[in-house]
Amino acid sequence: MRFPKAFAFAGILIFAVSAALFAQDTGQAPDLNLMPQPSELTPGEGRLAIDDSFRVALTGYREPRLEGAAGRLIQRLRRQTGIPFNDQLETDASKATLVIACDRAGEVVQSLKEDESYTLDVAAQQARLSATTPVGALRGMETFLQLVDLDARGFGAPAVTIHDRPRFPWRGLMLDVSRHFMPVSAVERTLDGMAAVKLNVFHWHLSDDQGFRVESKRFPKLQELGSDGKYYTQAEVKEVIDYARDRGIRVVPEFDMPGHTTALLAAYPELASAPGPYSIERHWGIFNPCLDPTNDAVYTFLDGLIGEMAGLFPDEYFHIGGDEVNGKQWKNNPRIQEFMKAHDLKNTADLQTYFSKNVVPLVEKHGKKVIGWDEVLQPGLPKSAVVQSWRGPRSLAEAARQGYMAILSAGYYLDLMQSAAQHYQVDPLEGATADLTPEQKSHILGGEACMWVEFATPESVDTRIWPRDAAIAERLWSPEDVKDVDSMYRRLVVTSHWLDSVGLTHHTAHAYMLERLTGLRPTASLEMLDSVLEPVKGYAREGARDYSSLAPLNRLVDSTPPESTVARAFAKLVADPRANQDAIRKRLTAWRDNGSDAGLLSMMRGSALLEEDIPLAKDVADLSAAGLQALDYISSGKPAPDSWATEQKALIDRARKPRAELLIMIAPAIQNLVEAAGKSGP
Amino acid sequence: MRFPKAFAFAGILIFAVSAALFAQDTGQAPDLNLMPQPSELTPGEGRLAIDDSFRVALTGYREPRLEGAAGRLIQRLRRQTGIPFNDQLETDASKATLVIACDRAGEVVQSLKEDESYTLDVAAQQARLSATTPVGALRGMETFLQLVDLDARGFGAPAVTIHDRPRFPWRGLMLDVSRHFMPVSAVERTLDGMAAVKLNVFHWHLSDDQGFRVESKRFPKLQELGSDGKYYTQAEVKEVIDYARDRGIRVVPEFDMPGHTTALLAAYPELASAPGPYSIERHWGIFNPCLDPTNDAVYTFLDGLIGEMAGLFPDEYFHIGGDEVNGKQWKNNPRIQEFMKAHDLKNTADLQTYFSKNVVPLVEKHGKKVIGWDEVLQPGLPKSAVVQSWRGPRSLAEAARQGYMAILSAGYYLDLMQSAAQHYQVDPLEGATADLTPEQKSHILGGEACMWVEFATPESVDTRIWPRDAAIAERLWSPEDVKDVDSMYRRLVVTSHWLDSVGLTHHTAHAYMLERLTGLRPTASLEMLDSVLEPVKGYAREGARDYSSLAPLNRLVDSTPPESTVARAFAKLVADPRANQDAIRKRLTAWRDNGSDAGLLSMMRGSALLEEDIPLAKDVADLSAAGLQALDYISSGKPAPDSWATEQKALIDRARKPRAELLIMIAPAIQNLVEAAGKSGP
Repeated sequence: MRFPKAFAFAGILIFAVSAALFAQDTGQAPDLNLMPQPSELTPGEGRLAIDDSFRVALTGYREPRLEGAAGRLIQRLRRQTGIPFNDQLETDASKATLVIACDRAGEVVQSLKEDESYTLDVAAQQARLSATTPVGALRGMETFLQLVDLDARGFGAPAVTIHDRPRFPWRGLMLDVSRHFMPVSAVERTLDGMAAVKLNVFHWHLSDDQGFRVESKRFPKLQELGSDGKYYTQAEVKEVIDYARDRGIRVVPEFDMPGHTTALLAAYPELASAPGPYSIERHWGIFNPCLDPTNDAVYTFLDGLIGEMAGLFPDEYFHIGGDEVNGKQWKNNPRIQEFMKAHDLKNTADLQTYFSKNVVPLVEKHGKKVIGWDEVLQPGLPKSAVVQSWRGPRSLAEAARQGYMAILSAGYYLDLMQSAAQHYQVDPLEGATADLTPEQKSHILGGEACMWVEFATPESVDTRIWPRDAAIAERLWSPEDVKDVDSMYRRLVVTSHWLDSVGLTHHTAHAYMLERLTGLRPTASLEMLDSVLEPVKGYAREGARDYSSLAPLNRLVDSTPPESTVARAFAKLVADPRANQDAIRKRLTAWRDNGSDAGLLSMMRGSALLEEDIPLAKDVADLSAAGLQALDYISSGKPAPDSWATEQKALIDRARKPRAELLIMIAPAIQNLVEAAGKSGP
Repeated sequence: MRFPKAFAFAGILIFAVSAALFAQDTGQAPDLNLMPQPSELTPGEGRLAIDDSFRVALTGYREPRLEGAAGRLIQRLRRQTGIPFNDQLETDASKATLVIACDRAGEVVQSLKEDESYTLDVAAQQARLSATTPVGALRGMETFLQLVDLDARGFGAPAVTIHDRPRFPWRGLMLDVSRHFMPVSAVERTLDGMAAVKLNVFHWHLSDDQGFRVESKRFPKLQELGSDGKYYTQAEVKEVIDYARDRGIRVVPEFDMPGHTTALLAAYPELASAPGPYSIERHWGIFNPCLDPTNDAVYTFLDGLIGEMAGLFPDEYFHIGGDEVNGKQWKNNPRIQEFMKAHDLKNTADLQTYFSKNVVPLVEKHGKKVIGWDEVLQPGLPKSAVVQSWRGPRSLAEAARQGYMAILSAGYYLDLMQSAAQHYQVDPLEGATADLTPEQKSHILGGEACMWVEFATPESVDTRIWPRDAAIAERLWSPEDVKDVDSMYRRLVVTSHWLDSVGLTHHTAHAYMLERLTGLRPTASLEMLDSVLEPVKGYAREGARDYSSLAPLNRLVDSTPPESTVARAFAKLVADPRANQDAIRKRLTAWRDNGSDAGLLSMMRGSALLEEDIPLAKDVADLSAAGLQALDYISSGKPAPDSWATEQKALIDRARKPRAELLIMIAPAIQNLVEAAGKSGP
């Protein structure tokens, strides 16, 4: 088997981190703001001061990638602290604040086997980072940057010894760049964020119905007719691959087939299973256009395309998609139906398997291994393939049982607007996979967060990926028993701000979008409203309007973060309304006054983009007023009358319904308050 | 005379805009958020909707600069509205939303004579922008973008007819890149901001004691020994010049001499007036190192350097500095003293004039005209020179009287942390210049804001330039009688947010720096404190600490904006405490509670960077409490007792003193309240 050492050691490491975490929870050691949590952490004595004398030295093996990373570390630390550090590396290691010692070169093309482990030893006088490979050193540098904080003494890093390595070797983020094109700057920003939380696979979803996004020199019509001019040149692709490699990230390209190919078929309609012409799809959903598995020209074309792209992308793996083929064109084409009968293919799934069996050898011929969405898991799939489980964890277990390698994406779809906790609680080795044998479990390589961009643009995409992806990154890096949700959230809030220093725009874009919504007026009252809302969940937005790729994504739902930190904190307070009465009352009063504020409402009426949100503002005010009344009942010790409770119930039922594709996230907590008021007693 | 037509027409235009402004103030027409205010504006009927059908057409003269600008306009409008407009230019002008019609090419090298005028006619169906030259079109495009707002109907631009042209042909911003190096990205961002408010001269202060910032191929030691590796390559200089030209901005380079040359002398100590060696200066102030005007090698060197740089910078003007020569090296050098006697040079000013007389011909030999700081205004200065008046407006008048061209910078120093109103009230043709004859007045070409960066870094520089520079831009562009300060501030607040869409970072950097100060904790309470503070004024910071170019600029004073909008609004409220009692009380209560909040104080105690600001937080709380008491007296109708007033006076005296290089800007208004309470009566 091909799984790396780090993975094999997971059993031991789990114990180590448990002890460390336990020490933190019960002892006086500070809760360090590390995310992902390292495998093993031992607090030390004292603190390394970070001041203008800070210098970095490289010892041992050196290469430009390490030097570049050390330079970026200095820049990042400058941004974190505002101190104008000396840019030059220190040649005398004894004089350096941070010594980075690397043993040897990493793989020429980073693979699943790359050693990502490191040891970071921070003492009061010096920090020492040791790693076998440059990739391990990169991981340790991020940990070092996360350790740096500000206290009454100034900037510094607490003394600590960390031995760290990943639980899973495949920790990815898939980014769809087809539905809304993401320029290189957005991709590179995303890579910076990924590296910061130790993710190591960038899965680049380059083609779909809505666009074919990479330049083909062999088939230039692909970008000419399939991209609206929005595609990556091959030079840009190489730039991105280099950028990713510099950050220890593999780039796995995906060319989705045989479905999700409308943009490709706009260029080459003769490869479709029904007569063309085709044009780039502007809407969201599952569409009919599909490659014709019975047409030899399709395989000739794919041989050429895969060959060209296999030469462009150095990674060992090549993603051929395979998802969501509805089979309609196949069913409606008598010639294809004839072919299926002649080849004993009983249904369209069989025909897709036939297609896969023809495509996989093409990929292998060009020196790559195949990865595909879980639909490719059909009898006859070569055992070298990796299955990406997206429809549920069962296919993950099934793939492993059948001897395939597999990664989990079900439960990690960032575009579905779930909470960080929901993602965090999904573990590739729990649930459906829990019963696997250890050998079978070793086939689970890790997972990938997925960011589909029907409802995200380069402007807003960071607000959808971050900070929640950091929680998924922790699930995939940290030992299995690192699963305390409260600790995760405590660290996530800090990590989210730390990610600002990485250059991510989730905070600045959110602020800018609110400014736009108000027509450049002050945003404080809109911010207060927005802070208790969340976008609707799952696929609810797709049905809410007739969306297309041309629709502006400039409404409140497009800027509101996927998860309301404020509502989560409020729910915690409401769990004990008596103890937290003052804090609850303060918040409810502010929300009530804000939502009934004439300034807010008149501003919203004056903005065509905010008018739809006025009912939400009013309901937040009414809910807050109800919550305050409930608190009065609770503190009076006398239960609220039934008539009052019934009235509030109607309000809460209304307030829990989505409006303008948004949800009021304090509604459940208010409901709890109202229910508590009904049962109130001393 | 060389002044352009636009300038000559100012007299007529002044009247036109007065009428338009008057109409706006008394009629029902909305106060448009334009800055600078155009020369002539006539409101129309209706509104041009900006929706996803928005398209731009170019008619008449075309060139890549216009096409690039139209493309950027679409991008900017996309950012303003969030609507994914079609990127392609419309070829059929009748179908376009905005038609840009340009008559002819502009100057090959933009000069003072460039025609910047334009006419913008927005009707309900279409907007038409007409200009003689591409630069005029660029100015009109910014006006169009500023007109777009959001109301209950959606995004749109009000129907209006604007005839616009600048009052002065030289409207500049000087940026010091020597004391803190500003990378190309910061320079280009600054150029975008300048273009947005119709400034047209980027004065690039490239050399000073603290750094020589441009690559010389003839004298490479300049950047090797004089820049710490932080300099612009010649390719980068060309990129910046092209970037500026694309935005209708001239680039005037400054090589400061004979003083402010320590960095140059670090490379070529043999050119100094005292024996070396020299090293790059790390502190702020006026230093002794100075070129030796008596040394022929100095002129040979300058001939080479000026020749090389004159070839690199296409602008007609070349800035030779000339400021702040303290003459110490000259006085202490017997050989120089001997030379002065031999040449009948009575003092060091005479020797500097001797130097200038030698340098000016070198500049002219290489095809350029000279501009210098007002110290160069000495008998014998060639009449082609432009004098930049920085020590006061008197030299401006004197230069014009002597027949020189001149620009004003005194009163426009952004680094001195004055209010926008203070800058706004400085007019190149008022005060010392008011008595000039019309012919003499025609020598006043305009002005330049100056941004010296002793206390600014690439991170913070936007917070120092913007939005105040927009007020100076209006002074230099708009008719003389556009001087209503309230109107300016009303528009400045909106313009400041609009500048976010231009890509300036004054808001995001401020927010990030506060986040850093709190150690990534929530910033709301610090924001509230910060919102009533301003940095100390003038040169007060230089004496406050032993600053150097290596000192971190990461304290509260470094992030606090130069002008407190909150304090200004509060002072307005306090002007009528009875009428505004509720609003005043609300603010004072919030500030009192915030400044005495245990959470804020404990957070500040936990941050080495904020500890120094705790007395400010406490004083804001105490001042607010005093203000609330004063309000109580005022509303009671009974005057406050003298003992109370005396006590408050002591508090206010303390609170008005700078601490941590910051001022509490609500202190004067509180003082007014306290005084009003003392006189209180029904």
